[in-house]
Amino acid sequence: MINDTLFAEISSVLKGRLTRSKSELDLHGRSETWFAPAPPNAVAYPETTQEVAAMVKLCHAHDIPVIGYGAGTSLEGQTSAIRGGITVDFTRMNSVISVNAEDMDAVVGPGVTREQLNIELRATGLMFPVDPGANASIGGMAMTRASGTTAVRYGTMRDNVLGVTAVLADGTVIETGSRARKSSTGYDLTGLLVGSEGTLALVTELRLRLHGQPEAVSAATCAFDDIRTAVAAVIDTIQIGLPIARIEFLDSESVRAVNQYAGADFPTKPHLFVEFHGSQSGVAAQVKTFGEIVSDFGATGFEFATKPEDRTALWAMRHNAFYACLALKKGCTSVVTDICVPISRLADAVEETAADIAASSIAGPILGHVGDGNFHAILLIDPDSQSDLAQAKELSRKMAVRALEMGGTVSGEHGIGMGKTGYMAAEHGAAWDVMGALKDALDPKNLMNPGKLVPPRDS
Amino acid sequence: MINDTLFAEISSVLKGRLTRSKSELDLHGRSETWFAPAPPNAVAYPETTQEVAAMVKLCHAHDIPVIGYGAGTSLEGQTSAIRGGITVDFTRMNSVISVNAEDMDAVVGPGVTREQLNIELRATGLMFPVDPGANASIGGMAMTRASGTTAVRYGTMRDNVLGVTAVLADGTVIETGSRARKSSTGYDLTGLLVGSEGTLALVTELRLRLHGQPEAVSAATCAFDDIRTAVAAVIDTIQIGLPIARIEFLDSESVRAVNQYAGADFPTKPHLFVEFHGSQSGVAAQVKTFGEIVSDFGATGFEFATKPEDRTALWAMRHNAFYACLALKKGCTSVVTDICVPISRLADAVEETAADIAASSIAGPILGHVGDGNFHAILLIDPDSQSDLAQAKELSRKMAVRALEMGGTVSGEHGIGMGKTGYMAAEHGAAWDVMGALKDALDPKNLMNPGKLVPPRDS
Repeated sequence: MINDTLFAEISSVLKGRLTRSKSELDLHGRSETWFAPAPPNAVAYPETTQEVAAMVKLCHAHDIPVIGYGAGTSLEGQTSAIRGGITVDFTRMNSVISVNAEDMDAVVGPGVTREQLNIELRATGLMFPVDPGANASIGGMAMTRASGTTAVRYGTMRDNVLGVTAVLADGTVIETGSRARKSSTGYDLTGLLVGSEGTLALVTELRLRLHGQPEAVSAATCAFDDIRTAVAAVIDTIQIGLPIARIEFLDSESVRAVNQYAGADFPTKPHLFVEFHGSQSGVAAQVKTFGEIVSDFGATGFEFATKPEDRTALWAMRHNAFYACLALKKGCTSVVTDICVPISRLADAVEETAADIAASSIAGPILGHVGDGNFHAILLIDPDSQSDLAQAKELSRKMAVRALEMGGTVSGEHGIGMGKTGYMAAEHGAAWDVMGALKDALDPKNLMNPGKLVPPRDS
Repeated sequence: MINDTLFAEISSVLKGRLTRSKSELDLHGRSETWFAPAPPNAVAYPETTQEVAAMVKLCHAHDIPVIGYGAGTSLEGQTSAIRGGITVDFTRMNSVISVNAEDMDAVVGPGVTREQLNIELRATGLMFPVDPGANASIGGMAMTRASGTTAVRYGTMRDNVLGVTAVLADGTVIETGSRARKSSTGYDLTGLLVGSEGTLALVTELRLRLHGQPEAVSAATCAFDDIRTAVAAVIDTIQIGLPIARIEFLDSESVRAVNQYAGADFPTKPHLFVEFHGSQSGVAAQVKTFGEIVSDFGATGFEFATKPEDRTALWAMRHNAFYACLALKKGCTSVVTDICVPISRLADAVEETAADIAASSIAGPILGHVGDGNFHAILLIDPDSQSDLAQAKELSRKMAVRALEMGGTVSGEHGIGMGKTGYMAAEHGAAWDVMGALKDALDPKNLMNPGKLVPPRDS
């Protein structure tokens, strides 16, 4: 426990930026989805790596759990302080520290949000493309190995974090990676930390790979008669190697939600929302090829958004689809699922999921980043209904089992947190124990975001 | 030590495929470069994961080191059995187990070579692009995180290994990754094992990302007046985002070696060897853009190789450049260097290296994968001359220090082995100790390729 002496000591290291105010504790204990609130004992607002190292060292000495916190947009309870301790809110470490246009990289604080970063990059001709929808923090995105709409073209956080500065459980500061484009010097610690959900270290600086802003961009939407033909069109698009920048699927129910929430008037049929990046001629060629593919699958209502403001509106609709789905059912909360399957099994996976949801008594719009084989059902539940929650969990379980049977994974991008530890043994077998052994090696006292991701530790 | 009883026991597990013949021990103890021979006590030829697991379990029980061996083409002494033990030669695990064209992936044994794999893929329209030059084994390439000529376009082994089956130090078998294109389910164990040089596990199966064979390919060579302009042309090419498939630099001395070895007649000036992949129109556009860039830097003697046989001849010359360089000096051996710097520092790094070599009394052609900022000097030494070796090591040390000062790395692709452990503390600081802690977690008895990559262990 954090007694007053320890509180004062940590607060002093942070120049007073440590709080026990109830509203702060409550804010940091809540989740975007169905998890019960689990507030920490205190919230810290560090400004430097040194401050983080000093406070973590104190926490280590006194066995206080430490939980990283970015924008609070994670979906599997990653930031819940289920064993108390101190939540480290990185809001004040939100500087774009340097941008190196020649090498196309940037160094940022973990609290920088992806929207903020792209605004700051605008004049450089560069961009950071990873886009999970929510205006998440870069640190949080790294920790859950986030991806989203553009991963089909630009990769996930795994591909776009080149190195980090990290504070280990005992307060040791390490730097991983280099400024070179590749390296063969030892274990890939950057790759180990990306996706580790704060269970191995707190990341206090990130070096990111940037990409050139495309010379030309075109976005489009089109409708299909049924799920299978829409997904089949996606599979063909990926298999011929079209370098599409985004290819998003929304089922009829998601389209209805978006129409209602954003005042749009898409036909309530399964849709693809797509975007093309490249040179003027390259984009034109991509659009032509894609048009030919989807025509073969009977796509209708092809609408283009070539003006920037139309594209912004289009992707805002897609990004707000989660909130649009929540708005379908007044006062509801959600169980958000996130499976990813080999592209060859995608149509089966989506159809079988849709059939399961249709056979239940709850609503569950389906949408996702189908270019990667990754999709979500947003299972809408009455927060007071145990029956709704039970049904949602069972639907979620069926999806996870199906993903594994198809050679896929129980999470494409949301991560494990508390929500999916129950599937880890099934997905990874003995490799989950290896994760536990790595956790023990770097955090033997189990203080870094305890209770998440790895098998239960003894402590 | 391996006494006769233990030898018989392990041999029985391997159905007799365990040998102590002197010629086999010597063969597996030698290195491609300057390292002194370090033969193992026995050489194993397993055929299945189960055999590897059974023999590793016995080795674990009896404290016998285990060293993985693919094609023996590593350059930093990775396969030397410096503490004795059993070398596990994967030659007999050389099947392409499955190719899934729809999902563009394949499962292969570690002993499959990259040339063999591409021959087997030829009819599928797919290819495995990673190309370190030597006809290395896929397992070995994964373990050193190899890259080579095509990494600038297709990435390194880190980007192209989707998952592995691995045998841990105690004989436990794990599988990492899934068949989905991405995942957020826990620590990236695939990424941890790729580049681990056999110090954490033996990899017995690999799932690889395949790429479509390009519709059109064009290769070209051109000459420059000096190193700086050649490298400046590369930097411009990378910075405008041209999706070039290969962009290789050879200095005058390398060109002279290639001319002599392969009977070519390139002007003895710094050269770029390049290749473009894409659609017919895409390649044409790339060639045009590249031509404009290099013209600005005074490139001359632009020669195209559009016919497959001419391209094969061109890349064979490039791939044999290491042997061509060795042939410059009769009876020599080499110290091969391998630094990688941010692209913005590449011209400085190459020029300063060339000046250091010119000021020494040994020859050292410079060549490399400059699109990644990665280059090599092949330092040619008389194997009996301590002075040559001392000079080469000093030149190598200066290159490594320069790479670190420039924010780069002491190895872009060859790895650490025994040759570069001396630079690990300088490059990684406390992060090198973290690598040691991970090693201890997975291999507490220090039996997996001991003496390589990590800080010296107690045992």
